[in-house]
Amino acid sequence: MFDFTLDAAEGSARAGRFTTPHGEIPTPSFMPVGTLGTVKALSMEEVEALGARMVLANTYHLYLRPGHELVRSLGGVHEFSRWRGPMLTDSGGYQVFSLAGTRRIHDDGVEFKSHIDGSAHSFTPEFVMEIQRALGADVVMAFDECPPGGCDRATAERACARTLAWLERCAKRFGELGCEEPGPSQALFPVLQGNVFDDLRDEHARRVRELGEWAGFGIGGLSVGEAKPDMWRTLEVLDDALPTDRPRYLMGVGYPDDLLEAIARGCDLFDCVAPTRNARHGTAWTSEEGQVNLKAARFRDDTGPLDAACDCATCGRYDRAYLRHLVVAGEWLAMRLLSIHNLRFLVRLGEEARSRIGEGSFDGWRRDWLQRYRKEGSRQ
Amino acid sequence: MFDFTLDAAEGSARAGRFTTPHGEIPTPSFMPVGTLGTVKALSMEEVEALGARMVLANTYHLYLRPGHELVRSLGGVHEFSRWRGPMLTDSGGYQVFSLAGTRRIHDDGVEFKSHIDGSAHSFTPEFVMEIQRALGADVVMAFDECPPGGCDRATAERACARTLAWLERCAKRFGELGCEEPGPSQALFPVLQGNVFDDLRDEHARRVRELGEWAGFGIGGLSVGEAKPDMWRTLEVLDDALPTDRPRYLMGVGYPDDLLEAIARGCDLFDCVAPTRNARHGTAWTSEEGQVNLKAARFRDDTGPLDAACDCATCGRYDRAYLRHLVVAGEWLAMRLLSIHNLRFLVRLGEEARSRIGEGSFDGWRRDWLQRYRKEGSRQ
Repeated sequence: MFDFTLDAAEGSARAGRFTTPHGEIPTPSFMPVGTLGTVKALSMEEVEALGARMVLANTYHLYLRPGHELVRSLGGVHEFSRWRGPMLTDSGGYQVFSLAGTRRIHDDGVEFKSHIDGSAHSFTPEFVMEIQRALGADVVMAFDECPPGGCDRATAERACARTLAWLERCAKRFGELGCEEPGPSQALFPVLQGNVFDDLRDEHARRVRELGEWAGFGIGGLSVGEAKPDMWRTLEVLDDALPTDRPRYLMGVGYPDDLLEAIARGCDLFDCVAPTRNARHGTAWTSEEGQVNLKAARFRDDTGPLDAACDCATCGRYDRAYLRHLVVAGEWLAMRLLSIHNLRFLVRLGEEARSRIGEGSFDGWRRDWLQRYRKEGSRQ
Repeated sequence: MFDFTLDAAEGSARAGRFTTPHGEIPTPSFMPVGTLGTVKALSMEEVEALGARMVLANTYHLYLRPGHELVRSLGGVHEFSRWRGPMLTDSGGYQVFSLAGTRRIHDDGVEFKSHIDGSAHSFTPEFVMEIQRALGADVVMAFDECPPGGCDRATAERACARTLAWLERCAKRFGELGCEEPGPSQALFPVLQGNVFDDLRDEHARRVRELGEWAGFGIGGLSVGEAKPDMWRTLEVLDDALPTDRPRYLMGVGYPDDLLEAIARGCDLFDCVAPTRNARHGTAWTSEEGQVNLKAARFRDDTGPLDAACDCATCGRYDRAYLRHLVVAGEWLAMRLLSIHNLRFLVRLGEEARSRIGEGSFDGWRRDWLQRYRKEGSRQ
């Protein structure tokens, strides 16, 4: 039910196809985040129309509200959210570790308090597998410990050891659940840790690979505050350490320029809340002007589209003057129209990278694209 | 360019067609409110898809933001908002009178402070015509004084006198603007005042009719806090006082039951923010259960549509369990899906009333409908 085919490669950049029970994802591919079973402000028809192929949902959030057992009884997260294509649920680990001050980590798992009502909860590797089984996404992520960017080596080492121990427990429970009950066909991705310590990354990846034949790998512990050159170097270490015939999902990335840098270093799948969070602040990405904020006075009477090179529903129908008006007035429609554009921008970037890799023109295109984007972005 | 044809009548209820430069509106018809050139949370494609024929925009809001001259330079409110059908702008009178404590009324007009930044502004009848000319909607409303519901007779009399004096000034300036410059073809509707004093209403309507050949009439000063029986009686007074061959727009109404009561008393056009405001609070109207709030625990695992009798996009695709989840989690999509449903509910009520009036079965249907709706509503 799960397969990854490499169609082309250029340097470390790869054009592949990841097959899941709910369909195929041509890679590289950006995955919109549908935290609570909805991509903020959008309908799933809109998410589909903008070309997204796989959608994320958050285990932590759905566990708290409406509850994983309710989602199961309603037919699982696909049926619940009306997304018919491939889905992935994260492990909730990143969320509960972010609850600084209200969570306690120990070897068995994490105790934490709900951000909604302060009620006490506990995640163990086994329980997280049970929750994700109930949600029923195609890809489920192992429960890992993600230390903050800039942590010292000893902290990173401890997190790697714990993540490895938890991975064994996740894999065991995941296997049991697949045998015990009827349910969806799912694949478990391990999450790779090791911060920006090259030898730790290499060692951790090797030990994870020894634990099983994984259908794909999650790359965790990046985009958490480390310097960009450290992130790129770490991806290069992992590019050597990971098998080429499995998809690599770089978690929490990212911005358009980060996406291209990571694609160049062999990453295939991505997710980030930036497209929708930026939309909420009136910020949009453009091909020719980099990142712009629609509140700027210069857009007041600008009757051009947000991005003349974009094929999204927003750019096809609305002009900058109207979008600026909606943003300034705080209208709900602003959030929606900018989200559609920003998501399409990243999805299209993946599509174009794939096509360029197929032609062997990816690297030159990427350099030109980044130079133009960054130059314009720095002028804002 | 403006015409009103009566296709059928049953008692005082009328099925008509109101023709405007941007198209025909079969009446009775509910008009969604697009305050700032957007119906909150919806795209104009969605507004069109739910069957709305005419959309409102608010003069006060567009004057403050983005400014009527900017809207004019961008091609007028149709081009600006991407609504291609008939549009109506209110006079802004109701909004500035609502700014209690920050506005001063005198015979020449109203001085008020912006709700956005406290800046000082002044509306006169002439200026309001100029703003609405710049916005360019099909129907523009005269600048009137709307006293609060429950005001004494002397207050209502003074408001009638001032409204009449202002109407003369509006009509004069409206005529000048139509001659002076090229621009859209527009119709000016007077606004009828007189609170719930029958003789004042009758007298005021008579004097307004003496002032000109109006293309239609706005019924103001109702749904502002008076008792429902007073509102229905006042509409009966006006039904006798107004010509049958002109559309009657009951301003600020309303809820589904109010809509049917007003249609039975000869009203043709309606507007209200209730459908979208209620959506924001998780409230929806249903044919069989009256008004419901999606937060109710009984909807937690309800896999039925919000309203089995409804043909809207929300009821066609989503179930109550998912809608409840979105409402409880405060998701943006909740506002949007419930707005689509609530607006379609009122639009469909107008459509069915029209069809029933054509068949001569309106009155019995209305009684049955109201009895069922109110019985169920009272159980909530």
